[in-house]
Amino acid sequence: MTKTRQIKLGAFLMTDGHHIAGWRHPRAPANANVRVDHFLRLARLAEAAKLDAIFLSDSLGVRDTNLESVHRTSRNVGFEPLTLLSALSVVTHNIGLIGTASTSFNEPFHIARKFASLDLLSGGRAGWNLVTSSGEEEARNFNLDRHIPHADRYDRAREFLDVVKGLWNTWEDDAFIRDKVSGTFFDPEKLHVLNHRGRHFKVKGPLNVARSPQGHPVVVQAGASEDGRDLAGASAEAIFCAHRTLNEARAFYADIKTRAANAGRNPDHVKIMPGVSPVIGRTEAEAREKFEELQSLIHPAVGLQLLSTVMGVGDLSGYDIDGPLPDLPETNGPKSRQQLVLDAARRDKLTIRQLYLSIAGARGHWQVVGTAEQIADALEERFVKEGADGFNIMAPHLPGGLEDFIEGVVPILRKRGLFRTEYAGTTLRENLGLPFPEHHATHRQAEAAE
Amino acid sequence: MTKTRQIKLGAFLMTDGHHIAGWRHPRAPANANVRVDHFLRLARLAEAAKLDAIFLSDSLGVRDTNLESVHRTSRNVGFEPLTLLSALSVVTHNIGLIGTASTSFNEPFHIARKFASLDLLSGGRAGWNLVTSSGEEEARNFNLDRHIPHADRYDRAREFLDVVKGLWNTWEDDAFIRDKVSGTFFDPEKLHVLNHRGRHFKVKGPLNVARSPQGHPVVVQAGASEDGRDLAGASAEAIFCAHRTLNEARAFYADIKTRAANAGRNPDHVKIMPGVSPVIGRTEAEAREKFEELQSLIHPAVGLQLLSTVMGVGDLSGYDIDGPLPDLPETNGPKSRQQLVLDAARRDKLTIRQLYLSIAGARGHWQVVGTAEQIADALEERFVKEGADGFNIMAPHLPGGLEDFIEGVVPILRKRGLFRTEYAGTTLRENLGLPFPEHHATHRQAEAAE
Repeated sequence: MTKTRQIKLGAFLMTDGHHIAGWRHPRAPANANVRVDHFLRLARLAEAAKLDAIFLSDSLGVRDTNLESVHRTSRNVGFEPLTLLSALSVVTHNIGLIGTASTSFNEPFHIARKFASLDLLSGGRAGWNLVTSSGEEEARNFNLDRHIPHADRYDRAREFLDVVKGLWNTWEDDAFIRDKVSGTFFDPEKLHVLNHRGRHFKVKGPLNVARSPQGHPVVVQAGASEDGRDLAGASAEAIFCAHRTLNEARAFYADIKTRAANAGRNPDHVKIMPGVSPVIGRTEAEAREKFEELQSLIHPAVGLQLLSTVMGVGDLSGYDIDGPLPDLPETNGPKSRQQLVLDAARRDKLTIRQLYLSIAGARGHWQVVGTAEQIADALEERFVKEGADGFNIMAPHLPGGLEDFIEGVVPILRKRGLFRTEYAGTTLRENLGLPFPEHHATHRQAEAAE
Repeated sequence: MTKTRQIKLGAFLMTDGHHIAGWRHPRAPANANVRVDHFLRLARLAEAAKLDAIFLSDSLGVRDTNLESVHRTSRNVGFEPLTLLSALSVVTHNIGLIGTASTSFNEPFHIARKFASLDLLSGGRAGWNLVTSSGEEEARNFNLDRHIPHADRYDRAREFLDVVKGLWNTWEDDAFIRDKVSGTFFDPEKLHVLNHRGRHFKVKGPLNVARSPQGHPVVVQAGASEDGRDLAGASAEAIFCAHRTLNEARAFYADIKTRAANAGRNPDHVKIMPGVSPVIGRTEAEAREKFEELQSLIHPAVGLQLLSTVMGVGDLSGYDIDGPLPDLPETNGPKSRQQLVLDAARRDKLTIRQLYLSIAGARGHWQVVGTAEQIADALEERFVKEGADGFNIMAPHLPGGLEDFIEGVVPILRKRGLFRTEYAGTTLRENLGLPFPEHHATHRQAEAAE
């Protein structure tokens, strides 16, 4: 471990918490999904602790159509990420703002433009978490009756990202002269029209937003299937992933860094940040008790539906909740998470109830329950053993769970020299240690000068 | 005129000003298109003066492909309206936030969701200015080689609006119970799934954003063609329009109010707010001088291109700039504004140069040049004679031109009892005097109870 390698930390803000019953926790506000002040508080809290970024997931609709369960959960209705992050951009100064947007039901011009605008609003702190959409319920909000197949989604995603990055290269960094006397606003030689014509998209450009102080938004990815890893290795600058065991995490880490190197990239320029959901007590017993308190708040209908969603299968309510998980057909859902859950079920011989309880806290992500010291140890081990470059903190309830992590774990990591005491800069790239993306024209000029 | 009828005022924020050469004015910051603090200042200025709303137009691309002119103007590159308004929502408290979004190259689910999110972020201050896109250059950013014809655009717009309003009626206002003890987050009977299947769209819903304190965003429109007026009479709650003479304004006003009444609506519930661009001096001569100073900053290439854009025609550079406007073929552009400009050219026998100078200040909108008293008189006349319910102020340069209007004209209107001294409420609907849109289910219950 070199002296400069430090843990990157994101705060994954899931409205009132990542635990499926988090909204029922006494410390969580039940109306967080309509309260911008809740998110202002969370963003300021994360920024005061010098975290790298806040992170928002997204869903293009109410995924759960099972009224029996959905009316008992809080997470289907809330702010749209780009508008919410834009609101947070003007009341924060250093923290990164990473939002999720799907390539399946958007147009690249809109995504390039909105994230570029957020990047300018925030002075260079935006990140785009590129995902493909797997939910049939999302497809039905966008003129389709069924979802597009997994491989096609990724083919579209690859081209989508090419277009977005092309549009972000419309203007060279010094294109805008703004000389009032001569009346020259920009140098026409520093405007580059994309003229993209591909299989999925025809996008001419130019983009009507200037580049930001960090060049363009950081490209984040979350897919962990073979297609997802391919795209991530070639293009992602940060990866949000789900690994429960150290071995899984190390294998994924090595695989992605290799893919990045094979794609001609510096492996340090893709930061791997698995999710982790911490439940912290003054003693391990107290932490366990806190966790069980949350678990006890899960209604069986909610647990069953959560399992169906994570597995990408239909209604499980016909099966014995205290019996084993039945054999399930292959689905069109997210491949990797599904496999992780299945492996865990078979390995540990879990009943359906035990299985849904095992993912309720963090939806298949790493769940840690213990003292702040124990959690810091676990994070350090995974970081040092190259299972992660950092972590996306998934507090079980918010703001309480994030407060606990920031008050308990962050000072320990800091004392060990594993986490920053001050921001490295004002852009997300500076803080994550990612390079400034040179404009392709600048790049060519530098080559010509050699 | 009843005692309660007062002028509504919007501040139309066109980056550094509405005058095409506004960015070259000494009082305008040349880098406004990348400065969020410029917009923060403008929003606070408008709010301190108790204006009803700020208003942002939109363009889905750089419309002007003529490099010779475009590199001499500032208005092709800037923030995206929804992200910018979201940023402004958390640093303002009363002022409305109206953003433009096209129905031609968007999906209704995205628009319904993002504006609903802005509406919640702002505590019920959002407005959506529904437009159709007429620029070929915009079409080319969205997989098309040419633009869709005018009539088809409006057919799509009508259905688009139906879907958006349907999605905004997903949740009844009291749907969210949030009872931690029983674990009931919402009342499933108060969730309404849209299931829209129409000619242009299949959108199932439900929307994943709750209703706001004003129910849903105010629906604003700008189209003034026959198709546009039809849609506006049936659905718009505020109309932003362009009329240079009192007679034009009165005819339009009467027409829209009649259409609204014919559609079974209260004509008071559609507020007609034409644009007006004021240049204010201590004397009329000083105002003229200020205006001429701005006009002198227009490069001929910019003037010609502006004229081409407003007229929806191609390159005019082949014609004698000091000769008359040639006969032009009918185009696919915005019908009404084109006709207004043509009428003015023929009526006043203007040369091409005179014509572009005549629209440079306000792009075909009403240009007033005079003392604050003269401008207040002109606004009062148009308001009292039912040519307008209010005005969208298009300052020639920003922030200076808006400061001049607020310091000069607003106090006079206020002294005459024509403009508010305090906000009527915290929502845009309360301030504009628009009714709360009852949820259709609530509506049906009220009918059943009668």
